[in-house]
Amino acid sequence: MQQGANLPGLGSYNRSVVLGAVQISGGISRVEIAAMTGLTAQTVSVIVRRLLEEGLVREDGSEPSSGGKPRTILRVAPEAGYAVGIHFDPGGLHYVLADLAGRPVRTSRSPVRGDHSPERLTARMGTAVRRLLAEAGVPAERVLGIGLACPGPIDQPSGTMVHPPRLPGWGKVPIGDLLRAATRLPVTVDNDATAAVIGERWAGLGRTAASLAYLYLGTGVGGGLLLDGRIYRGRSLNAGEFGHITAVPGGPPCRCGNLGCVEAVCCPDAIVAAVHERLAGGAGGTLAAAFRRDPSRVGHARICAAAAAGDPVAAQVIGEVAAHLAGAVVTIVNVLDLDLIVLGGPALGPAAEIYRSTIAEAVASRAFTRRLRPAEVALSPIAADAAAIGAASLVFHAAYAPDPATLLSQGTRRP
Amino acid sequence: MQQGANLPGLGSYNRSVVLGAVQISGGISRVEIAAMTGLTAQTVSVIVRRLLEEGLVREDGSEPSSGGKPRTILRVAPEAGYAVGIHFDPGGLHYVLADLAGRPVRTSRSPVRGDHSPERLTARMGTAVRRLLAEAGVPAERVLGIGLACPGPIDQPSGTMVHPPRLPGWGKVPIGDLLRAATRLPVTVDNDATAAVIGERWAGLGRTAASLAYLYLGTGVGGGLLLDGRIYRGRSLNAGEFGHITAVPGGPPCRCGNLGCVEAVCCPDAIVAAVHERLAGGAGGTLAAAFRRDPSRVGHARICAAAAAGDPVAAQVIGEVAAHLAGAVVTIVNVLDLDLIVLGGPALGPAAEIYRSTIAEAVASRAFTRRLRPAEVALSPIAADAAAIGAASLVFHAAYAPDPATLLSQGTRRP
Repeated sequence: MQQGANLPGLGSYNRSVVLGAVQISGGISRVEIAAMTGLTAQTVSVIVRRLLEEGLVREDGSEPSSGGKPRTILRVAPEAGYAVGIHFDPGGLHYVLADLAGRPVRTSRSPVRGDHSPERLTARMGTAVRRLLAEAGVPAERVLGIGLACPGPIDQPSGTMVHPPRLPGWGKVPIGDLLRAATRLPVTVDNDATAAVIGERWAGLGRTAASLAYLYLGTGVGGGLLLDGRIYRGRSLNAGEFGHITAVPGGPPCRCGNLGCVEAVCCPDAIVAAVHERLAGGAGGTLAAAFRRDPSRVGHARICAAAAAGDPVAAQVIGEVAAHLAGAVVTIVNVLDLDLIVLGGPALGPAAEIYRSTIAEAVASRAFTRRLRPAEVALSPIAADAAAIGAASLVFHAAYAPDPATLLSQGTRRP
Repeated sequence: MQQGANLPGLGSYNRSVVLGAVQISGGISRVEIAAMTGLTAQTVSVIVRRLLEEGLVREDGSEPSSGGKPRTILRVAPEAGYAVGIHFDPGGLHYVLADLAGRPVRTSRSPVRGDHSPERLTARMGTAVRRLLAEAGVPAERVLGIGLACPGPIDQPSGTMVHPPRLPGWGKVPIGDLLRAATRLPVTVDNDATAAVIGERWAGLGRTAASLAYLYLGTGVGGGLLLDGRIYRGRSLNAGEFGHITAVPGGPPCRCGNLGCVEAVCCPDAIVAAVHERLAGGAGGTLAAAFRRDPSRVGHARICAAAAAGDPVAAQVIGEVAAHLAGAVVTIVNVLDLDLIVLGGPALGPAAEIYRSTIAEAVASRAFTRRLRPAEVALSPIAADAAAIGAASLVFHAAYAPDPATLLSQGTRRP
């Protein structure tokens, strides 16, 4: 059942709207905030005064105005709050300390070893977070919380990982609780790709698009959705599993239990296996000699670089993978009729432009709404760090993003 | 940019929330409305008094209460307003006169002839609407408007059909304007499948699910989306084109210009062609004799009935089609993490249960979130009439559905 709206919610919602306008603009006057948000000049003025008192926003110079009196420019005070983002991927751990403007202040990385129990891993995360803060000279009191981006599925609100396909043995791990115990900081857990789309909303291309899909290429293939200006998570908070769109009906088995998923044919392991198979079968090109000496020297990063440089075997395999991804993106666009597709994640590597152009061409020539307003396809400007920056943004997003739901009364849930 | 919230919006939003609670419940007390919506007893009481004065709601009996005094039951006054729904499909025109409770009061059907120009067709629609109202004894003043459900893509807000794949020659037809001129009634145009999902929200299974996808099987294959309790339309109002998910990569050409779309292999024409091909190739079963006498006697309706009765050729073809649809539904569930998939539309026919069970089995065994909370798969209780009832509901939905957007100020749009 839909909830009624109440008055107390109005103030905190409008406060988030104003803070969001300042954050997204990078510098804005009170008059511009009123024009953008539809709030009265007086309401904006009252809210800004409070944000200045709290130190979340500061006055920073002025700009000439047509009316005569110059307008004071407001900016987010980056040092007013920090958040730690942790991206936990089977391929490694990536830490980012971000300021309130969404900028990474300090980062670090460490490998994930096969023998890690959840308890040992979260204890190591706690040590790494303390080191990161010490190196940056940021006291723990200034940290609003930790955002943890994990492979899905995630069960919420407990923050439990449930049978992640690439982490056998992590059956039902309450990783949020474990990390809270290890750090004594508030912890927000989310799906890695949802974290990336929140990062894009906060610090990247998502600042202006109303509806976007984020296609995330990491150890696996994931995604996140921003629909009508809001993060869409789905009933169990696992929307956007683009890696489990079928690419090859009846194709190779996927770790999720289905056959022929995008992830099964497009992930780095699948790319390496396909290139190795062709080289073992006698294909030539710039990788053949290295492969004959030691197949392990022809890894994913090298294959992407070779494809970008025009090596025929690598380019063919990456081209096939790009075509599978393009088919999935056309499906996503046909299902959701989007403004923008953002490509991100560390596995794009030097092949990023091959993926972008193949997908853009498919959307422009095959998507159902192509004659109306074709969706754009763009590379994330924060691609390699998207999930970690996004994880940090989870904390800011939870604290400051305007959510119309806060307007609604907290009555009994659906009948 | 997100809009701030204003006070005047609050009242009309809460009015819609209360009316929506009465409409969805089928009979509810003021105390129950307050509990469901989170509004105070006094706010509910004030709003209900106004709805009673306007004649949209009426008091209808009472129920015992634990507190002693019996509670008065409120119901929507069905005769307070009517809407005409028109479903325009290449296969035919379907008219429904619905009352405010969403119940069909009177229906009619007519064929679409190949020689119809848009002007002649909308003139015929006008004649049919006048006849429908006269037969039902409903004066035109009591009609809130006409909802017109058309094959997509639709360009909004003009209500223009843009190159619908199954209606060659209807390149850029302002069908909303033409119908308005022909009837002098307000006209709301939408995609047929979006209309069906609004119908489901208003009168069917969508009353309780927060997020659902509606898979619509008609002359083509379409769909609609309800996400987080709101109709999701996409940037050009053509979200939910499930018929253009790829079922067979590189498969048969689809009218949309892509290859191997669900629609190309699952629409009634494709089913008939597949059965005819097998019968022409010598396959036996209960349809073979009729096919030898006259292939045109083995049409889609007969094939569906034969499949339901166990004919091997029909059952095999329908089984393959159901498997393609199931793959598309697993994709939709993986992308959107839904509560419910509703199957509807006239082409389900007697094969409905084959489709439902095949799709339900695939979602339960292959969807990514199956271990958390598997999505349900259900047949629409208003299947054959869904788009026409939905078209009528478009009118009510526009007039009465609670939309949190009404809370927001109408300032300048995004920067």
